[in-house]
Amino acid sequence: MLIKDVSLLQSGHLLKGRDILIQGNRIVKIGRDLKDEDKYDTIQGHGKLAIPGLVNAHTHLAMTLFRGYADDMALMPWLQEKIWPLEAKLTAEDIHWGVKLGCLEMIRFGITCYNDMYYFMDETAKATKQMGLRAFLSGVVFDSRPEFKAEAESFIKRWKGDELICPAVGPHAIYTCSEETLAWARDTSEKNGIKIHIHLSETRGEFDDSVKKRGKSPVQYLDSLGLLSSRLLAAHCVWLTENDIRLLANRRVNVIHCPVSNLKLAAGIAPVDRLMAAGVNVCLGTDGASSNNNLDLFEEMKMAAILQKNACSRPEAMTAKDIWTIATENGYQATGLALGLAEGALADLSLIDLRKPWLTPFSNILSLLAYSMVDGVDTTIVNGKVLMKDGKIPGEPEILVRAQERFERLTS
Amino acid sequence: MLIKDVSLLQSGHLLKGRDILIQGNRIVKIGRDLKDEDKYDTIQGHGKLAIPGLVNAHTHLAMTLFRGYADDMALMPWLQEKIWPLEAKLTAEDIHWGVKLGCLEMIRFGITCYNDMYYFMDETAKATKQMGLRAFLSGVVFDSRPEFKAEAESFIKRWKGDELICPAVGPHAIYTCSEETLAWARDTSEKNGIKIHIHLSETRGEFDDSVKKRGKSPVQYLDSLGLLSSRLLAAHCVWLTENDIRLLANRRVNVIHCPVSNLKLAAGIAPVDRLMAAGVNVCLGTDGASSNNNLDLFEEMKMAAILQKNACSRPEAMTAKDIWTIATENGYQATGLALGLAEGALADLSLIDLRKPWLTPFSNILSLLAYSMVDGVDTTIVNGKVLMKDGKIPGEPEILVRAQERFERLTS
Repeated sequence: MLIKDVSLLQSGHLLKGRDILIQGNRIVKIGRDLKDEDKYDTIQGHGKLAIPGLVNAHTHLAMTLFRGYADDMALMPWLQEKIWPLEAKLTAEDIHWGVKLGCLEMIRFGITCYNDMYYFMDETAKATKQMGLRAFLSGVVFDSRPEFKAEAESFIKRWKGDELICPAVGPHAIYTCSEETLAWARDTSEKNGIKIHIHLSETRGEFDDSVKKRGKSPVQYLDSLGLLSSRLLAAHCVWLTENDIRLLANRRVNVIHCPVSNLKLAAGIAPVDRLMAAGVNVCLGTDGASSNNNLDLFEEMKMAAILQKNACSRPEAMTAKDIWTIATENGYQATGLALGLAEGALADLSLIDLRKPWLTPFSNILSLLAYSMVDGVDTTIVNGKVLMKDGKIPGEPEILVRAQERFERLTS
Repeated sequence: MLIKDVSLLQSGHLLKGRDILIQGNRIVKIGRDLKDEDKYDTIQGHGKLAIPGLVNAHTHLAMTLFRGYADDMALMPWLQEKIWPLEAKLTAEDIHWGVKLGCLEMIRFGITCYNDMYYFMDETAKATKQMGLRAFLSGVVFDSRPEFKAEAESFIKRWKGDELICPAVGPHAIYTCSEETLAWARDTSEKNGIKIHIHLSETRGEFDDSVKKRGKSPVQYLDSLGLLSSRLLAAHCVWLTENDIRLLANRRVNVIHCPVSNLKLAAGIAPVDRLMAAGVNVCLGTDGASSNNNLDLFEEMKMAAILQKNACSRPEAMTAKDIWTIATENGYQATGLALGLAEGALADLSLIDLRKPWLTPFSNILSLLAYSMVDGVDTTIVNGKVLMKDGKIPGEPEILVRAQERFERLTS
C-alpha cells in the first residue's frame, strides 16, 4: 500500500509531501516520490496529515455499552446500584457488540492499540480481531471470583503469540486481591513474559486504607510483593508520596494517567508533572466510557495538559510536545512493540483531514493535535490493514443498531 | 421551513417524532404531523436531535487567526512577546477572515449566539452578519487608547437596533481602565440600555493587586462604581470571596465561566458550585482560540462539569443537567433575548446526527450532550436561516484558504 503526498509528523517535526510505503504489516519506506505506484493500492494523502497510532493504555471496552447509563453519582452507589447489577446481566453477545462499538470509536479517534481489563476476554479478543485493532487484554481477577485465575491462565495460553492480541494478567486492585492473588499475577507475568495491568492508588480512600492496614502506601505494598517492574501498567496513580514516585521511576513502571475519569469520579489529579520530572514512563488512557464518557484520546490529551498546567500554576508545565509524547511514544514503550511512524515499524497509523476550521491556520502541528483537534481522523490503518477510509468503517451501521439493542435488553 | 420527524430536547426532556415549523425568524409551532408540507422548505429530521442554540458568552473571535501561534507560555511573555506584536499588525482584512473562521467553527459546534470584545468591531459585525450568526459585540476600551471610547460610542450608534448584532460596551478590565473609564462604561450602558462586557477577577494577581491598592476585591470595586447589574457580563470570576459571590447574586450579574482558558493559562478554577448555590446566573464561554485552542462549547461543558466535580470532591456536583442549563438557558437569560426551543422563540437551533458511535447507546440525552458529544452537529439555523445543512457551510473552503493566507502574512 502506498500513501502518496502526505504531510507527516515524525519525532514532533512536520515533513510535507512524503510517501509512505507499507508492505505486509510494516512501514517499509518513507520518502519523496516513491515509484511503482501500479503495484500497490494507493491512498491519496494530499491535504492530510499522517500521525502514528495512539495508544489508549487503560480502558474497559465492553463498558462502552453503559455510556450515559449512570452519571453524576458518588463511586459506591454508582457501582452498587448501577454498574454491578448491569454487569451481572452481561452475556457474550453483549460483550461482542459493546467491544465493537468501542472499536468504532477508537478507530475514529486514531487509536490503534488499547489496553483492557474486563470480563469475557475471549469474546473481547475475537471482536477486536474482527475490527482489526491491536490490544493488550487481561481477564480481570479478584478474590471473590476465585475461578477467574484459571480462566485467565487458559485465556493467556490460547492467545499467546497472536498477531494482534497480546494477553496480559489483570489483578483488579490491591483492595480486591489478596497478597496471594497478587503474587500469582506476578508469577504468571514472569512465567509468560507478559504485562500486568492493575488499578493503583486511584482514590484517597485506597491510599489511606493501605497505609492504615499495612503501614505501606499502595505503591510500597506492590513493591514489597515484587510487582513493580517495566512489565507493570498501573492505571491512575493519583495518590502518591515522593517516595512512591521514586519507586515507580526506579522500577520502570508504566503509569497510565486517566484525567477525565479521575475528574468525573472526583478522585483527584495525578502528579504527572512530578512523575515526568522523575523519569517515570507516563501513558494516557480514557478508562471505560461509563466514567468518561467517550474514548476520545485527543480530548484526553488536552484535558491532561491544561489540568497539569493549572495544578502546577505554570502554563509551561506539560507542553503540547509532552502530552503528544505521552499519547504515542510512551505508550509504545509500555507495549514493547515496534510502533511509530518510521521505517521498519508496525503499520499502525492514521490520516487526519486538515480541511477543518479548528485545524486552521495550519502551522504549529503539535499544538493543533494537543489543543484544537476534534474528530478529524478520516483513515485508520492497523497492522497494514485499512480499518477506516474517508470516514467509512465497514459494518458501522449494523454495530450501532446492535449495540442499541443490547443496551435496551440490559436495562429493560 | 418545516423540520420533520425530529427528536427534540425541551426543558431537559426528550420528545420523539416532532415537527418544528419556522416562519420568518421565529419558531411558530412544535407538534406532531404538522401539515402543509408543500408550502415550506422541508428538512428531514429522522435520526437527528434538535437542540436549542448554544451561547458562547465570552470570546475574542478574530483571535481564531492566532490559534496555535503561541502556547505553553506564562501570561505576560505570551502577551508581550507573541500576542501584542501580532495584534499591532492586524488589519480589517485579517479581522474579516479571522471572524469568519471563528464563525465556521461555532456553526459546526451548534453555537448560534456569541459575546465578543475586541478591535475592528465594524468588520466583526459585518463578517458575522454575512455568516448569519447572532452576536453581542463590544469594541474593547482601555486607558492607553483614549480614542477607543469615541469609536465604541459610534459603533453602538451604528449598530443599535440591528436584527443580529447587539452592540455592547466593553471596558477591558479593572487593571487597564481607570475609574473614569469604568464610570463611562456604566453610563453608556445605562443610556443605551445595552450590556457591559468585562474581564473580572481572572487571576490571583488581579485580585491581590486590587485588595492592596483599594482595600476592595475586584468585585467590590466594580460594585462601588455601580457597575454590578443584570446588564453586566463578567468573564472569568475565578478569584472570589464569599462576599463577592453574595454581591454577584444580589446584583444579578451574569458570570461567564471559561474553564479551558483558565486551566490553559493556569489562572485557577472558578467556584462555580458556590456561584450556582448562591443563585448567580453562570454562563459558559470558550474565550479566544489563542487560549483554548478551539471554540467547541461541548468540550467546554464537559470540562466545566468534571472539573467542578473534582474541585468539590463530589461526583454529584455540577450534573449534566446543570451544565446544559448553563450553556443554554443561563446564556439566554444573559442576552435577554427570546431564545430556546419553544413556540414563539427566535429560530436559533441545531440538529445533531445521532448515528455516531459516541452517541450510542442513545438513552440519557443530557449525559450524551454534556459528556460524550464530539462534532456531531450537521445543521445549524439562526434567525430562521439555514447556515449549515448536512455538514455543508457555503463558502467554507474559501474561508479556510483566506484565513491561512492572513495568518502567514501576520507571522511572516
